[in-house]
Amino acid sequence: MARLPLYIQIANAVAKLISDGALRPGERTPSLRAVCDHHHVSMSTAVQAFVELESRGLVEPQPKSGFFVKHPPPKTDLDLRPHPPRVPMSGSLGNLHASLFDAVASANLIALGGAVPSADILPTVKLNRMLAEKARHAGSRGVMYDLPPGSETLRRQISKRMLKGGAIVSPAEIITTCGATEALMLCLRAVTQPGDVVVVETPTYFGLLHVLEALALRVLEIPTDPQHGLRLDVLKSALKDQRVAACIVLPAFSNPLGATMPEDNKQQLVALCKKHDIPLIEDDVFGELPFGPKRSRTCKSYDDSGIVLFCSSFSKTLAPGYRVGWVTPGRFFHQVRTAKLTHTLATATLPELAIAGFLAEGGYDHWLRGARAIYKNNVMQARRAILGAFPEGTTVTSPQGGFLLWVTIPLKVDALQLYERALARGISIAPGHMFSLDQRYTNCIRISCGEHWSARIAGAIRTLGELAKRLAE
Amino acid sequence: MARLPLYIQIANAVAKLISDGALRPGERTPSLRAVCDHHHVSMSTAVQAFVELESRGLVEPQPKSGFFVKHPPPKTDLDLRPHPPRVPMSGSLGNLHASLFDAVASANLIALGGAVPSADILPTVKLNRMLAEKARHAGSRGVMYDLPPGSETLRRQISKRMLKGGAIVSPAEIITTCGATEALMLCLRAVTQPGDVVVVETPTYFGLLHVLEALALRVLEIPTDPQHGLRLDVLKSALKDQRVAACIVLPAFSNPLGATMPEDNKQQLVALCKKHDIPLIEDDVFGELPFGPKRSRTCKSYDDSGIVLFCSSFSKTLAPGYRVGWVTPGRFFHQVRTAKLTHTLATATLPELAIAGFLAEGGYDHWLRGARAIYKNNVMQARRAILGAFPEGTTVTSPQGGFLLWVTIPLKVDALQLYERALARGISIAPGHMFSLDQRYTNCIRISCGEHWSARIAGAIRTLGELAKRLAE
Repeated sequence: MARLPLYIQIANAVAKLISDGALRPGERTPSLRAVCDHHHVSMSTAVQAFVELESRGLVEPQPKSGFFVKHPPPKTDLDLRPHPPRVPMSGSLGNLHASLFDAVASANLIALGGAVPSADILPTVKLNRMLAEKARHAGSRGVMYDLPPGSETLRRQISKRMLKGGAIVSPAEIITTCGATEALMLCLRAVTQPGDVVVVETPTYFGLLHVLEALALRVLEIPTDPQHGLRLDVLKSALKDQRVAACIVLPAFSNPLGATMPEDNKQQLVALCKKHDIPLIEDDVFGELPFGPKRSRTCKSYDDSGIVLFCSSFSKTLAPGYRVGWVTPGRFFHQVRTAKLTHTLATATLPELAIAGFLAEGGYDHWLRGARAIYKNNVMQARRAILGAFPEGTTVTSPQGGFLLWVTIPLKVDALQLYERALARGISIAPGHMFSLDQRYTNCIRISCGEHWSARIAGAIRTLGELAKRLAE
Repeated sequence: MARLPLYIQIANAVAKLISDGALRPGERTPSLRAVCDHHHVSMSTAVQAFVELESRGLVEPQPKSGFFVKHPPPKTDLDLRPHPPRVPMSGSLGNLHASLFDAVASANLIALGGAVPSADILPTVKLNRMLAEKARHAGSRGVMYDLPPGSETLRRQISKRMLKGGAIVSPAEIITTCGATEALMLCLRAVTQPGDVVVVETPTYFGLLHVLEALALRVLEIPTDPQHGLRLDVLKSALKDQRVAACIVLPAFSNPLGATMPEDNKQQLVALCKKHDIPLIEDDVFGELPFGPKRSRTCKSYDDSGIVLFCSSFSKTLAPGYRVGWVTPGRFFHQVRTAKLTHTLATATLPELAIAGFLAEGGYDHWLRGARAIYKNNVMQARRAILGAFPEGTTVTSPQGGFLLWVTIPLKVDALQLYERALARGISIAPGHMFSLDQRYTNCIRISCGEHWSARIAGAIRTLGELAKRLAE
């Protein structure tokens, strides 16, 4: 019998490791060099083997870091009916929202729950100095309203930054906001009515689900691939028999999955929304934090009809406490501006000016490069530690930016129980229950790596692993 | 000038036939077909007009026979049916809201429209210096979230100030907000559902009507005495056959009337709300600006059951652009805090700390005394000038605090026309149309005296008077 080509044999061997669970989704495969050595083959045969594995959808290459085992596509036997906002978010889980933030503010807790960067990674001194300078020189401008659309100086800087994501947006198309939370709220108020159906990724972050609940919107959760984000195939079929008022996506390092939507998918998504005339709300709060050298293009950059409302803020990159974000609402500019007047009237003037000053002359790009390296290290260390400490069968996402990890623990572990036991040990985490309106992710947790990797955090992860193991018994 | 939508014009025409007695209760109205032909409009516009008439309670449909004039409800001389949020506020008058603020920001306009204090009356230099100092010394605290309830330092200062209005409120019962606009929004979100009926004074300020519209609330406008504020007798009788979800009052120097509710009335109002279990939202933004030596007691000071949600800010007294306000939500604390998380997540940290610093050591009371004297002079001068310049029969309110005047011009002057002609002459005013959901105040304007009295302002008032006289001819 003719033997299979060498590269197929090798591919089969690696595929078996994956199906056996010896190599888990998100993990790095053996390197090309290791494969050459182990199988005594040339580099080109090893490469062929990996191309084969990639074409089978089992692995994927990542720039400069080798091949990784892909996460299997989520099961599609999912419930695709829109959900009304429901009890879980307003009851005990509503309190969880507040308590995660309380944990961040508490000196006594190791806060792995809230997606908040640590102050010692942020350019704290420089920013505060910039604000002090602006305050000293602002005169009457500093105390007066900076009415929507907000500071022109800041909007000019934001317009420049948006170019890096490929979007050409003039300062006149931008409205400043009190963070991305307000930006999202305003967009939804501009394009929806209570009772409307809004598409979100699932899992998605609880803050967004709370906003949707507050506006009495119904939620249609579309499955999201941990690597590639929103499943366009599922969205397409859902749109066939469902009227949708808006679509919200985090195409860059989504929360909680850390998924990155390929540029092709972004383009297709914008086209799909344009075709169905569905406003697309793009939340880019993690977009400036890729682990690689360059940020990816935004959905907004593919928008030729004003259907994309792009929201972001400086809360993940500079200063959460300054409360400065923005929205470029495309053709909904007027509606969003009107909504802003009734929402908070204006964004605080001097924090806007300080951020604008920092963008203009504070070395933002230099700082970003440093922060990306720190977050990348934090994420990789935490990922390794989790895989080492948690029960067998636990999987962890492998994001290419941001600072969040999504951990899936074997099914019998209840994340709420884990949350409570961890809290009793001084560790705060975000249980999966918070990331969906139904009970899909009760065995998942989100871990934030917004703080410098340290023995303290390593210890916390070991503790979490022990607690999870005990729950799994 | 933006005209009213066609269907409103038609509804108004039919409403006039009814009020003139040309169409009597029980009579059939002109048919939809006849309306189409007569007004040269489409069937759908005609239908809209009748839906509008129906919502005003003037006509009712009868199966297969068309619309009939309804029998009027038992006579009170006032229209006490709740209004759904309606066209006037979202159409051309929605734009007016933004344009009044644009006028304040414009160097080329004499801005008598927006209720905004002038920067040269505010303690601008001292405040900005305080902010600079806080920024220099805040360290990581300055860039981090100050999550709800917000800065404790500030809440402690606010608690002290509230004592001056007779209310004993602990810092733990206070939530800081991005100005009073957010505070009101949060209160309404905490205690109402879309479609609920909310009581407001009439006339009341347009910002509040916009907030109510944004939340899809229905508005019940209760007549307000220019001296003594909300008419309790009318409110009492309205509550007999109307379920009300919340009551919003400005008991101290209301906007636009400048009315002051007597302390007895406040006490009765709180008791009435307690009896009917109706949350009472008290907006006190002008409360610290009496012309006399002492501020009056707040409704909150009479609240023994947590039914009063007290809102205020430093936007009229210190720095609109800092966006710092607060709410003491009584027994609705938890709901308001949760709403804040989805609304803006947090108030900007350093502006909070700067205001707290100013309250603690900036001589706030000393400054207030000076500002009160200035506003009192502004208001008296402007009042005299208006009475001298405007058409005979013009009346002007005589407020005991704040810096607003409400001017009623003889009936045939249309305030929107006056607004437009004034704008062409470089003067911005607030037309009465903005202060109610129906067309009650089309011959009124609001004049803000937030700027030092000057020849420039005196000249603007003379010009307004001339324009009004020409319109009255």
